[in-house]
Amino acid sequence: MCLSSAQHVIASTDSAKPAKYVFVFIGDGMGLPQVASAEIYSSALKSGKYPEAPRVLSFTKFPAQGLTTTHDASSFITDSASSGTAIATGNKTLNGVISMDVDKKNELKSVATMAKEKGMKVGIISSVSIDHATPAVFYANVPSRKMMYEIGLQLADSGFDFFAGGGVVDPDGKKSKMEKKPGNVIEYAKQKGYKIVDNKEAFSALKPDGSKVWAVTEMPADESAMLYEIDRPKDAVSLSDYTSKAIELLDNPNGFFVMVEGGKIDWACHANDAMSAIKDVFAFDDAVKKAVDFANAHPDETLIIVTGDHECGGMTLGFAGTKYDTFFQKLQHQKISYVKFDQKLGQFKSSNPNAQLKDVMPLITESFGLTNKGGKSEMDLTEYEISLLKDSFAETMKAEDARSSDDGAYIAYGGYEPLTVTITHILNRKAGIGWTSYSHTGVPVPTYAFGAGAKTFDGYYDNTEIFSKLVSLMKI
Amino acid sequence: MCLSSAQHVIASTDSAKPAKYVFVFIGDGMGLPQVASAEIYSSALKSGKYPEAPRVLSFTKFPAQGLTTTHDASSFITDSASSGTAIATGNKTLNGVISMDVDKKNELKSVATMAKEKGMKVGIISSVSIDHATPAVFYANVPSRKMMYEIGLQLADSGFDFFAGGGVVDPDGKKSKMEKKPGNVIEYAKQKGYKIVDNKEAFSALKPDGSKVWAVTEMPADESAMLYEIDRPKDAVSLSDYTSKAIELLDNPNGFFVMVEGGKIDWACHANDAMSAIKDVFAFDDAVKKAVDFANAHPDETLIIVTGDHECGGMTLGFAGTKYDTFFQKLQHQKISYVKFDQKLGQFKSSNPNAQLKDVMPLITESFGLTNKGGKSEMDLTEYEISLLKDSFAETMKAEDARSSDDGAYIAYGGYEPLTVTITHILNRKAGIGWTSYSHTGVPVPTYAFGAGAKTFDGYYDNTEIFSKLVSLMKI
Repeated sequence: MCLSSAQHVIASTDSAKPAKYVFVFIGDGMGLPQVASAEIYSSALKSGKYPEAPRVLSFTKFPAQGLTTTHDASSFITDSASSGTAIATGNKTLNGVISMDVDKKNELKSVATMAKEKGMKVGIISSVSIDHATPAVFYANVPSRKMMYEIGLQLADSGFDFFAGGGVVDPDGKKSKMEKKPGNVIEYAKQKGYKIVDNKEAFSALKPDGSKVWAVTEMPADESAMLYEIDRPKDAVSLSDYTSKAIELLDNPNGFFVMVEGGKIDWACHANDAMSAIKDVFAFDDAVKKAVDFANAHPDETLIIVTGDHECGGMTLGFAGTKYDTFFQKLQHQKISYVKFDQKLGQFKSSNPNAQLKDVMPLITESFGLTNKGGKSEMDLTEYEISLLKDSFAETMKAEDARSSDDGAYIAYGGYEPLTVTITHILNRKAGIGWTSYSHTGVPVPTYAFGAGAKTFDGYYDNTEIFSKLVSLMKI
Repeated sequence: MCLSSAQHVIASTDSAKPAKYVFVFIGDGMGLPQVASAEIYSSALKSGKYPEAPRVLSFTKFPAQGLTTTHDASSFITDSASSGTAIATGNKTLNGVISMDVDKKNELKSVATMAKEKGMKVGIISSVSIDHATPAVFYANVPSRKMMYEIGLQLADSGFDFFAGGGVVDPDGKKSKMEKKPGNVIEYAKQKGYKIVDNKEAFSALKPDGSKVWAVTEMPADESAMLYEIDRPKDAVSLSDYTSKAIELLDNPNGFFVMVEGGKIDWACHANDAMSAIKDVFAFDDAVKKAVDFANAHPDETLIIVTGDHECGGMTLGFAGTKYDTFFQKLQHQKISYVKFDQKLGQFKSSNPNAQLKDVMPLITESFGLTNKGGKSEMDLTEYEISLLKDSFAETMKAEDARSSDDGAYIAYGGYEPLTVTITHILNRKAGIGWTSYSHTGVPVPTYAFGAGAKTFDGYYDNTEIFSKLVSLMKI
């Protein structure tokens, strides 16, 4: 059989000009179901006899689209460290490893570092902490993603021009085994010439003056990440704002490389919280649109790649209980993320140690729209759903060390707050969304491309080829 | 934004020669998880420190690959009738409708009929009954897929050159409301000039003599379908054999159009039986390989499309209980399909009306490899899994009308034999495969293309565009 997709890829890029302005958008945990659920949700909100064709995200309209395999060196299911290393360096490695080989000895150079060495400016943005695996693979080389202090120091040493998003998890190296610690990561970065910006006013005032910039969210949330988009006040700095600022500060005659991670898509999917995931897909797409605007102003020399590093949660767009129907519009009743609900539930528990399910129902209704009015509303709970809520509420009201720890409990709750994850399961299932895992899955993810050399991203290829295609198109 | 993928599609096909030999392979219920699970299963069977890159199916190596949306006129989740109508005629319609419009009044002409009218020979092959929705949309026009007698008559009236696969469901029109029934469908087809072949010897002896041929499986199984591949004796006629024979009989100077459906992929996924689905994907791929061999002998004038009409079962490649690990090699212990196990279980129940779970364990071990030896084997059942088996066995031993019918029971068993579906759930979960539904889901499916004009099938497009691309490339 004469089946080679590689040949046409190379042929079509040989004579083109280099891609001078390059954006790599990584939706962490964003597989096909995450993309499709965001589009179907939008379509479902529009009334009409027949639904609109779901096609609302900017990147699903990109002219080139492919499917990307994500397995790592030792496992069909990757983590963000090994998949990030594949995308950033073109090499398969083990779960947990940040841009080093499978022996954890040799450092692997990232496309971002190569771009920097060629005189391009480089920006790294993430909605989770900036020392998290996906951003880290572009500027750091460590054998374990848990070495967040070391990763933070390497950030400061990278010389990259722009960092933005969440904060750092271990600023003072409390979890680090380093013998001689050079002090607080932020202070260390200042010594290395970074201008640190951690409030909106200073961020908005940033102008291109040649300084290296590290912008940290003014509202650090869970694990130093940015807030979930569903919880973000409208006037707080967004992923899209960070992307605009990167473009403004990095635009220069030698070009730039910008990586933007939508990291909280993944976290929401780990927790099986579809509405929070979908809103973070929209926030991610808003950032992509900034790049598309730039590309339209700089045609022939801008390349935008949008991909996922893996799927997360085993999300599907169909549930046994709803059969062939979907009711995605029901998701709009969810007003806060599972994390924010956890906080409210914690306060409730402290104030009401002997509460029953009915006592917390007003909070559930307010937060997720679920009601218990005997079948009068489409948001009413069924008997079966109420039994699930009762069981999980009983678990939630127990002390952590008294909770069930058998296989059934893990499958039901995945280590999350039992009542909260049961609520998102129920709401998602009412909408017609199912989940099978609290971890990543091994199904290939879609990759979208727009601009200079985009057509090389059509077809079916491994995530390591994203690196090789980028390097080829950037001619670095 | 200047985002149009349609333009490049048209431009690249204008000057080419027509696609003269056209194959459309439809994996019913074959979404990305079904394809990926087959590839990962193959890879998992090979030993070695690190797994081989999973890339074993012929069509995942095709040079052109796209993603296809499958929603129908009124629903984000399609059935095979409306998705088949979209692929065959380019029109969105309602669930259950066979190549008629949403008003169920106007007939829609299929690409197969158009090909026939242009003088091409036409073959229709399916591993399920030949009057089932997917094959029917290519030759029949009826408001409901349930009108199987009418569909059978329209098959005989179609004048198409070759039909093969399963039998017919309602040969004598017992479920039909037709006033004047022209008798048995098979006899009617003979009157219309069809040579009926229902045994291997006669099938093998078929030679191209200009006759219209209708070949029916010699071993009709559930609902007049072919056997599941996992149950098929090696010497019984396969989907691949039917495809070879179609090529042999239909090859002629005016070209041909052949549709081959892998219909039992869908049925296995409805029942959440991964091993049976994967083996049927392999059988489907074996048929595709016959087309690829023909294409390599007739380059520049052969086009092969492989697609799914929708995903089925909400299959995912990751399960809560196995977290980041997969153990697909465990699936190889399954020796028979869920249907064949149901038959054995029925016999067991008749002979042992007062049996306990331990009494049926030998049959379970023999059929699925699951053991109860206290944790000595990787196929040993956990306490949690045993509790699931006990509950489902108790349900199975009840009379059908005494079984639980609440939401929880439907979610657990989906109307299937409780013990059987619990066994496949347990085996699949041990392997790292999850399911969320017993119905179809709404996630887009991959489409693969090889040969003349294949590159027009790159990108992201609706299933109705498969029709328009085909018609454009075939110039019919």
